[in-house]
Amino acid sequence: MSRNLAVSAERIAADIDALAAITDPDRPWTRRAFSDLFLEGRAYLEREFRAAGLETRIDTAGNLIGRRIGKNRSAGTIMLGSHSDTVPDGGRFDGIAGVVVALEVARALAEAGIELEHDLEVTDFLAEEVSIFGVSCIGSRGMAGIRPDEWLGRTAEGMTLAEGIEKVGGTPALQIARDDIRAFLELHIEQGPVLEGEKLDIGVVTAIAGITRVEIIVEGRADHAGTTPMGRRADALGAAAHVVLAVETLAGELAATPGHFAATTGEFEMWPNAANVVPSKVRMLLDIRSEHRDDLGEFLSALSSCLEGIALDHGVAIAPPRLVSDNPAMPMDTLVMATLDAACETTGAGHRRMASGAGHDAAFMARIAKAGMVFISCREGRSHAPEEFAENADIALGAEVLLEAVKRLDME
Amino acid sequence: MSRNLAVSAERIAADIDALAAITDPDRPWTRRAFSDLFLEGRAYLEREFRAAGLETRIDTAGNLIGRRIGKNRSAGTIMLGSHSDTVPDGGRFDGIAGVVVALEVARALAEAGIELEHDLEVTDFLAEEVSIFGVSCIGSRGMAGIRPDEWLGRTAEGMTLAEGIEKVGGTPALQIARDDIRAFLELHIEQGPVLEGEKLDIGVVTAIAGITRVEIIVEGRADHAGTTPMGRRADALGAAAHVVLAVETLAGELAATPGHFAATTGEFEMWPNAANVVPSKVRMLLDIRSEHRDDLGEFLSALSSCLEGIALDHGVAIAPPRLVSDNPAMPMDTLVMATLDAACETTGAGHRRMASGAGHDAAFMARIAKAGMVFISCREGRSHAPEEFAENADIALGAEVLLEAVKRLDME
Ligand SMILES: NC(=O)NCCC(=O)O
Ligand SMILES: NC(=O)NCCC(=O)O
Repeated sequence: MSRNLAVSAERIAADIDALAAITDPDRPWTRRAFSDLFLEGRAYLEREFRAAGLETRIDTAGNLIGRRIGKNRSAGTIMLGSHSDTVPDGGRFDGIAGVVVALEVARALAEAGIELEHDLEVTDFLAEEVSIFGVSCIGSRGMAGIRPDEWLGRTAEGMTLAEGIEKVGGTPALQIARDDIRAFLELHIEQGPVLEGEKLDIGVVTAIAGITRVEIIVEGRADHAGTTPMGRRADALGAAAHVVLAVETLAGELAATPGHFAATTGEFEMWPNAANVVPSKVRMLLDIRSEHRDDLGEFLSALSSCLEGIALDHGVAIAPPRLVSDNPAMPMDTLVMATLDAACETTGAGHRRMASGAGHDAAFMARIAKAGMVFISCREGRSHAPEEFAENADIALGAEVLLEAVKRLDME
Repeated sequence: MSRNLAVSAERIAADIDALAAITDPDRPWTRRAFSDLFLEGRAYLEREFRAAGLETRIDTAGNLIGRRIGKNRSAGTIMLGSHSDTVPDGGRFDGIAGVVVALEVARALAEAGIELEHDLEVTDFLAEEVSIFGVSCIGSRGMAGIRPDEWLGRTAEGMTLAEGIEKVGGTPALQIARDDIRAFLELHIEQGPVLEGEKLDIGVVTAIAGITRVEIIVEGRADHAGTTPMGRRADALGAAAHVVLAVETLAGELAATPGHFAATTGEFEMWPNAANVVPSKVRMLLDIRSEHRDDLGEFLSALSSCLEGIALDHGVAIAPPRLVSDNPAMPMDTLVMATLDAACETTGAGHRRMASGAGHDAAFMARIAKAGMVFISCREGRSHAPEEFAENADIALGAEVLLEAVKRLDME
C-alpha cells in the first residue's frame, strides 16, 4: 500500500530513530521522566519544534509545548500530543509516536502554507508512565488542574516531585487548568492485537476504559507439608488458584458482551513460601478495565459470591475484595470521533471504533477539552517491552489522519 | 488417665521449661544450631546428663552424647535421642521432647538400679532442622558416615559449616560411621493431627516417608493487562492455577490409598508481578512425601500428562517437572516396631502403626542401626510454630514406652 501523503514518513522515521538513540545504553529503550536522558530527549524535541516554526515553552505543569499562532486568536487552541517518557526496558513507540506525529502535522501545515483559525499546540506531556514517584500522567493531570497537591511531596532518587517538576522547567506551586483548548487529539500505538488481527490501519477510540484495582487476601493455615493429611489442610494457595480461575472465567464472560472488559491477577504473593510448609496466606491484586460501569459492578458482585463459595469449600477466610483505586472510564468526544472517522475515509485508512484498554493522557485532557484518540496497529500487540514495534508506513498514515482531522476541526 | 510411671513427669516438665527459657527473647522459641544460644542449651543438657550419671562427650560429627556403660562391653550400644535445635519461631517440643525423654529414661534406669547388658547412649543430634547452612540432619548424617564432604565449605553468618562443627566441639575433618549401635529409638511429636484425632497415645512409626522436591516452570507471555483481549492471552498464572489444583487432586487420590502420601506446592513465585502486566512466568516448587515409591512414580507420571494438557489448553510452555532432590522412604526395623508395640501394650498406651510424613534423624540412623520411632500426639498437629504443644502426661507416657522398649531390646 503506497499513498501520496502530505506528511513525510522519512522525517517521522528520523525523529523516532533520534529519540531511540537517547536511551540508557544498557537497557534499551529506557528514558524515564525526570532523568537527564529525558531532558536530552526534550532538548532534541525542542530543537525540532523550533525548526518547524513552533514557539516553545514549558508550562507550569512541566509539559513541553510548541505553538503555532492561528489567524483568529479568540478561536482557542487545537492541541496534539502524547509523551516522550518510557517505562524501564520500554519500547520506541509508546507515547513517542504520538509526539513525533504531532510535530510532523505542524511541519506539514507549515510546508503547505496552511494557516489555521485556531492556535495549534504540539505537546510532550510530562511523565505519562508510572514514574519514579509511583504515579502517572503527571503533566496531563496538571494541565487539567487535577494533579493532587499531596503528590508534590513524594520523594524518589533524592528529589521530591516538586523538585522533579522544577528540574524539567515547570512551576509546581502554580497549577492552572487550561480553558482555551477546543480539541485535543492523541495518536498512540494500540498496545493490543486487535487492529493487526483485523488488518486495519486506525482505531478511533470511543472511550478510555476505567482502571480499578482490587486486593484479595486469602488466609489459610500454615501446617507441616509432610505430616498434615491432604484432607485436613486449609491451603491458601489451593483456594487462591480457584480465585485466579474465577477471575479469568468471569472476565471472559463480560469480555464477550459489548464494551471493553478485562481483568488480570497482576500481582500474586504467597506466605510463608517455604517448601515444606502448607501455604498460609496469599495476596492478589486485580487490575480491572471496564468501558461500562455496569460491567464492573457485575464483575465485582459475581466475584464476591465466588469468593464466599471458595472460602467455604476450602476452610479458608477471604475478606470481600478491597478497592485500592478506582478511575471510571472516560468517553471520547462524539464530534471528535465523527471527525476522525471522516478523516479516515478521506485518507483511505481502514478503520474501526474501539475502546482503549490502557490509560492515556487523553483521559485527563477529556476533562477540559473535546478529546479523541487514534490508535495505530503494533506488532503482536507487544508494548512496554523492547520488542514493541510499529511500521513506519502505519505511523505516517496515522499522521495523515491527524492532519486531516485538524483541518476539519479547525473549520468547526 | 493417671498411671504409675517409673519415669518422672515432673523432671521432664522441668527440663522442657529450662530449655524453653534458653531462647531468643524476641522470637520465642528460637534456638538455632551453631548459635551461642544453642551452646547454652547444650551446656544445660550436659549438666543434666552428668547429674544422671552419664559420661559426656561431643563426637566428631558434633553430636552431644551421654553414655552409661553396660555389663557386657561386646553387646554394643542402644542409643536414644533426638535434637535440641529449633527452626526460627519454632516450638518447645519438636526434637526437644525426644532428647529430654531419652535423658529421663537414663535417670529412671539409674534410679531403679537397673544395669543393662548394652551401653546406653543419650544423644542430642547436631542441626536436625534446616540450619543456617541450608541443610538438615547434619549430626545424624555425620554419625552414619554420609555427610557430603562438600557441605563443609558452605558459608553462613561469617563461618563455614566446618567452623560451625568445630564451634560446637566436633572434628569435621574426621567422619566415622558408627558400627556399634544395635538399636536406635527416637521419640518425637507427631507434627500432624492423626493421633489427637483418634485419641491415641502413641504412633509406632513404620517408615519415614521419602521427600522429593520437584520444580515446575510455566512460561507464558507478558502482555498489557489493559489492552490484551481475554481470549488472546498466554497467562502463566492462569495455567499455574490449574497446576496447583492438579497437584491437590492427584495427591488427594493417592492419599486415599494405603501408605502415606502428600504433595504440597510450597513455593510459588510469579513474574513480572506488576499490576498491569499479564503474568509471563511462574515457578513452583513441590514437596512430595511418599511411603511407597510406586505412589511417587504414579503421581509424577499423572502430573506430567496433566501438565501437557494444561500447556496445550492455555498456550503456555511447561517443561517436564525437574527433580531438585529425591530421598526415598526409609523403613523402620520390623523387630524394633514389634518391640515398641509390645512396650505400648505393657504400659497400656493406646497405639497404632503410622508412617512419618516428616524427616527425622532416625532416617539416617536406620542406615547403621535397627531404628524405630515413637510419635506422641501434639495439639492440632501444629509444629514449627510457637503454638506447638504437647501434654506433659503424653510425653511422660512416651518416656515410659521408651524405657520399656529399652529393657526389652536389651534382652534381645
Ligand atoms: N498506555 C499505557 O500503557 N498506560 C499505562 C497505564 C495502564 O494502562 O496500565
Ligand atoms: N521433623 C521435621 O520437621 N523435619 C523437617 C524436615 C521436613 O520433614 O520437612
